[in-house]
Amino acid sequence: MNVTEYILNKLEELSISDFFGVPGDYNFNILYAIQNRSNIKWVGCTNELNAAYAADGYARIKGYGALVTTYGVGELSAVNAIAGSFSENIPVIHLVGMPSTKKIDDKQLIHHSIQNADYSIFMDSYRNITAASAILMKDNAKIEIDRVLKTFIKEKKPVYIAIPEDIAIMDISDRKVSYEYISNKDSLDEAAKKIAEKITASKQPVIIGDSLVKRFDSKIEYREFIEKTGIPVSNFLMGMDLTDMDYPCYIGGYFSQFKNPIAQKYIEETDCCITVGAIYSDLNSFGFSLPFNINDHIAIYGNYTYIEGKRYDNVKMSDLLEAVTNLIEHRNVNIQKTNIGLKHRDATKEDLTTDYVYSRIQDFIKDNDIVFAETGTIPFGITQFKLKQNVDVESQLLWGSIGWATPAAFGASIAKPNSKVILITGDGAHQFTALEIGSMLRYGLKPIIIVINNNGYTTERLLANSPQNKFNNIVQLNYTKFARAFEGDIWASKVLTEEDLDKALKVTQIMNKMCYIEVCLKESDVPKLFLQYVASLKKQPSQVVTLDKTNDEDIDNIEELILTTPSSGFEYETIVHKGLVADNTEQENTESDE
Amino acid sequence: MNVTEYILNKLEELSISDFFGVPGDYNFNILYAIQNRSNIKWVGCTNELNAAYAADGYARIKGYGALVTTYGVGELSAVNAIAGSFSENIPVIHLVGMPSTKKIDDKQLIHHSIQNADYSIFMDSYRNITAASAILMKDNAKIEIDRVLKTFIKEKKPVYIAIPEDIAIMDISDRKVSYEYISNKDSLDEAAKKIAEKITASKQPVIIGDSLVKRFDSKIEYREFIEKTGIPVSNFLMGMDLTDMDYPCYIGGYFSQFKNPIAQKYIEETDCCITVGAIYSDLNSFGFSLPFNINDHIAIYGNYTYIEGKRYDNVKMSDLLEAVTNLIEHRNVNIQKTNIGLKHRDATKEDLTTDYVYSRIQDFIKDNDIVFAETGTIPFGITQFKLKQNVDVESQLLWGSIGWATPAAFGASIAKPNSKVILITGDGAHQFTALEIGSMLRYGLKPIIIVINNNGYTTERLLANSPQNKFNNIVQLNYTKFARAFEGDIWASKVLTEEDLDKALKVTQIMNKMCYIEVCLKESDVPKLFLQYVASLKKQPSQVVTLDKTNDEDIDNIEELILTTPSSGFEYETIVHKGLVADNTEQENTESDE
Repeated sequence: MNVTEYILNKLEELSISDFFGVPGDYNFNILYAIQNRSNIKWVGCTNELNAAYAADGYARIKGYGALVTTYGVGELSAVNAIAGSFSENIPVIHLVGMPSTKKIDDKQLIHHSIQNADYSIFMDSYRNITAASAILMKDNAKIEIDRVLKTFIKEKKPVYIAIPEDIAIMDISDRKVSYEYISNKDSLDEAAKKIAEKITASKQPVIIGDSLVKRFDSKIEYREFIEKTGIPVSNFLMGMDLTDMDYPCYIGGYFSQFKNPIAQKYIEETDCCITVGAIYSDLNSFGFSLPFNINDHIAIYGNYTYIEGKRYDNVKMSDLLEAVTNLIEHRNVNIQKTNIGLKHRDATKEDLTTDYVYSRIQDFIKDNDIVFAETGTIPFGITQFKLKQNVDVESQLLWGSIGWATPAAFGASIAKPNSKVILITGDGAHQFTALEIGSMLRYGLKPIIIVINNNGYTTERLLANSPQNKFNNIVQLNYTKFARAFEGDIWASKVLTEEDLDKALKVTQIMNKMCYIEVCLKESDVPKLFLQYVASLKKQPSQVVTLDKTNDEDIDNIEELILTTPSSGFEYETIVHKGLVADNTEQENTESDE
Repeated sequence: MNVTEYILNKLEELSISDFFGVPGDYNFNILYAIQNRSNIKWVGCTNELNAAYAADGYARIKGYGALVTTYGVGELSAVNAIAGSFSENIPVIHLVGMPSTKKIDDKQLIHHSIQNADYSIFMDSYRNITAASAILMKDNAKIEIDRVLKTFIKEKKPVYIAIPEDIAIMDISDRKVSYEYISNKDSLDEAAKKIAEKITASKQPVIIGDSLVKRFDSKIEYREFIEKTGIPVSNFLMGMDLTDMDYPCYIGGYFSQFKNPIAQKYIEETDCCITVGAIYSDLNSFGFSLPFNINDHIAIYGNYTYIEGKRYDNVKMSDLLEAVTNLIEHRNVNIQKTNIGLKHRDATKEDLTTDYVYSRIQDFIKDNDIVFAETGTIPFGITQFKLKQNVDVESQLLWGSIGWATPAAFGASIAKPNSKVILITGDGAHQFTALEIGSMLRYGLKPIIIVINNNGYTTERLLANSPQNKFNNIVQLNYTKFARAFEGDIWASKVLTEEDLDKALKVTQIMNKMCYIEVCLKESDVPKLFLQYVASLKKQPSQVVTLDKTNDEDIDNIEELILTTPSSGFEYETIVHKGLVADNTEQENTESDE
C-alpha cells in the first residue's frame, strides 16, 4: 500500500466518497489513486476556490469533505474557502500535490515557485486556518498522517497535507490506528452532574442551540436533550434547523429586540441559559445582544464546556448532552405560543416584492430538503421561515464570504444526490462563482437555484453611506441565457411577477432536471429584519424599532432613511436594471429552454 | 489630509489611476476616497482573485497596479494572484479594509473572523508573498506607509497594507518624502568597470534578455546597451519582446536543444554570457538548460548584479546598463542569420490545425499590440512568432497559474484603453476566470479574445500518464453563447476551418468592439515545441529530438508516443467534443451576434 492509498482508506472510513479539486502536474499521483478506486469519485471543479467551497458544502451535509489541489497556484486559490471552513467548523481535508523530494532537496526553481526554492512557504498561508498541517517526507509520512487525521476528527476543522510526488507513491505499511476521539470520563461525569444540578435548581431555564450542534454531529442527542428535559428552546440564526418547529417548547429564534418578543423576554428573564454549539458573532447573535454574560451560565461546545466560566476539557458535546439528559427529570413549562413563520397568500399579477418571495419560498421547502442561503440579506429572510420536518438550512454567517453558496450547493448535491437541494443566492454573490453551474450540469445534478436579482451588491448598498455608490454596481448579466450556455439538462426562467414565481416553483416540481430561476426584485427591497439590523448598526438608535411593535409606516421610515442618506456627490451611474424591464424582444418569463 | 488620501497621492505619483477590487463593508472608507477623486477610477471586478489578476495585468503594462479588498473573505481570495505577482516581480499594492481599531482592541468576534479575535492572522498569509506588509495603527501609519512604499518601488514586488476603518479617515500631515531608489555610486562604478573589462576581453560575448528587464523599467537602457555594443543577443521565453526582431545582431530565442541551433551553438561557445533580468525556471529556460554555470559569467538583476559569482548590491539595472554602454566600444560581429517566425500560408477550407492557427495569429499581431498568452501550451506556440515593432507579450511562465490571462488582459485593457489587447487563452484555463468577460464589457473595453478550444486541460493531458484520464475533462460550454450572455457590445464567433479563422480575424479589424473568437482544435493538437519539451520531461531521452533536425515523421512519433501511453485502465468518458462537431442546429461559424 502506498501513502496516498493509506490516506484514501482512512478518508473512506469517514464516508468521504468524493474528492473535489482541479488537476495539476504535481498532484497526478493523488488523482491516479483516486481514479483507480471504484468506490470513490473525482469531482472536477472550475477553479480551486470553487472546489474548496464545494468540499465545504459537501462536509456540511455528509460530515467530512476533501479537496485536492496542486502546489502553489492551486492551493493558494483555496485559502479563503478553507478559512471559511475553519471559521465555521467544517472539516475539509486539503491534499496538495507537491514537487518531488528530489526537487525540494535540490532547491530547483520549478514553475509555481516564487523565485525562492523554500518549498514550505505556501503551507505558511494555511497555518492559522487549519487545525493541523504537514508536509509528508520519507521518514515522517505515517506518523504525520495519523496526527493530522486525529486532529481532523477531533476538532472538526480543516487540515492540510502536502504530498510530494514521490512520497505519494511510496510504500507504507497499513496499521490499524483508531482516530476516534473519546471524552475524559471524569470530566464528563463532573460536568454533566454540575449542569444537571444547575438546571434542576433553576426556575426558568432556556436552551439556545446553534450550528456547532450539527458540526459536532450531535443533532440527535440535542433533540433528545430538549425533548426529554422539556426546557424551552430557542436558537441563533445559524441554528434555525435544529429543532422541530412544531415542538411545543420551541419559543422561536432569538433576534434580540428585532423580532419575536416572546423569546427575547424568556431569555432576558432566564436564571439558567444553556447554549449548545453557539457562535456569538455579530450577525449570528444580532450584535452580541444576549442580555447576560454567558460566563454566568452554561456554554456547551464540541470538545469542551464552560459552566459558570469554568472550563471542562475533553468533553464531547454528544456525550455530555446524553449524560445530562439521563440526569434530569422532565419538566412541564407553560410557555406563550410564538407565531412562527411567514404568512403566505395567493399570487397576484403584481411585480414581486421581498415579502411575497420569501413567503412563497418558505412554502416551497418541503420535508428533508436542503437549503443553502447565500451570505447577505438572504439569511435574514430565511430565518423567519417556518421549516417543515428535517430541513437542513446552511448559511455562512460568521465567515460571510459571498460567492460561497453556489459551489457549496454543488458540493451538497454531490453529497446527497437524491435530496432536493435549494440554493438561494443574490445576483452579486452569484457572479463570484457562477461558473460552477457548469459543473453541476456536467455531473447531472438537479438542484433548484433561485437567484434573487436586485441589481448589485445590495447588502453593501445598504451598509454604505449611500445606496447610489457606483462601486456597488455589478456586471449586467442575462442569467438564464448564461445558465443555458453550459451543456446539460437545465430549465431556466426569469420571473417578474408573483404569478410567474408561483408558476415557476410549481414547474420545478415536475421537472426532473436542474431548475434555475432568476427572481427580479426592486433595488433595496430586502427583508425588513435586515433593514432594522442595518439601522441599528448605523448607530441611529432612534430609528431602531422592533418589528412586532412596528407598523408598516415605521419600516417605510427606516427604508427612507437608508435610501435618502446623502450621496457622496459622485455622479450616479444610470444603469437601467435590465432585470426589471419587461423586454419584449426576449420572451423568457417562465419559459423553458426546451 | 487623511491616511487614505495620503496613500492615494503617493500612488498617483506612480501613475496608478485605476484601482481594481471588490467592495466590502470594511473597505468603504477607502472606496469613498477613491470615488471622491476625479483623476482616479474604481474598477469593480467579479471576485477578488480576478481583481488581483487584473491589477497584475495592469501593472505589467503601466508599471504599478493596485488592488482593494475587504478583510478576511476578500483579501484571502487574492492570495494566489499576489503570489504570482511576487513570483514574477509585478508590483501590485494590496490595500485591505480592516475593522476599526476599537473592534480590534475589544477583540470583537465580528463577521469575517475565524472564531478568534486576533486580527493580524490574515496578514500572515501574505508574509512570504509580499516584499513588505503592514497593519496601520494610530501611531505608526505614516512611517509604515513610507516604509512599505519605498520597498514597493525598490523591489517591484507586491506589498500589503491593511487599514482599519477609523485609521483610513484619520488625519495625517502631508510631508514630501522621496521614495526613489538610487544606486550606490561606488558599487555601480565598480560593477560597470568589471563588466566592461570582461566584455572587452571576450572573444564571443552574448546577451540573454528576459522579462525582469521590463519589470525594472529598463527596456530603453537594454536596447541602447545591445545596439551600442553590437553584442549578439538572444532571450528566454518571457523575454521574447525585448529586442527588435529585425535587429541584425538578434540571434533568436534560446530554446536549448529544441529549436534554433544557431542561438544554441552561439551560447554554447560563448566565453562571456551576460544575462539581463533572467528567470532561470524550468519552463522559461527549457529545463535549466544553459550549457554553463551562470556563476562563471555576468547576471544583471533589478537591484543587484553577479559578476563571476560575486554579488554587487544596490546597483540598479537601468543605471548599470547605461554605465556599461558608455564604457564599451561597438564591435562588429558576423553572425549566422536565424530564420525567425512561423511561415504563414493562405487559408483553406480544411479544419484548423495548431500550425495554421499560430501562424495566422502571428500575422494578426501588429506594431504596438499587447498580447496576453495564457499559461500552458500557448507560450510555446507564441515564442516562435516573429513580432512586429514594439509588441508587448506577457505570459506567466514561472508562476504558471491558469486562469490568470483573462483578467490580466482586462487589467491591461484598462491600463491602455487605446491599444489593441489580444488575449490568447485555452478553454480549460479560460473557464477558471471567464466571468471577467462581463467586467470588460461593463467598462466598454475592446480586447480581441481568442479561446483555443481543444476540449479540456490539454497541458495536463500531455503531462499525465494518459491523455484519457477523466480528471482532465472539463465542463462543456458554448463559449460564444456564454460571452453574449453579458450586457455589452461584443462580436462573438466560433471557427472550425482555416477560412473561418481568417475571416474572423479580418472582421475584428473593422469591429470597434470586443471580439471573442472560439478556435476549435483537435484534442492534443498543440505546438510541436511543447510536445518535444514534454517528451524530454518524461525522461525518454531517445525520443527527444531537435526540431531543426526533425522531419514530420519524428514529431508524429513523439505525438504517438504521448497519445498511446497505456491508459490507467479507467474507463474513458466518451464526451463528444462539441467544439468540433458541425452542429446543424447552431449556425455559429463566423456569424456575428448582430
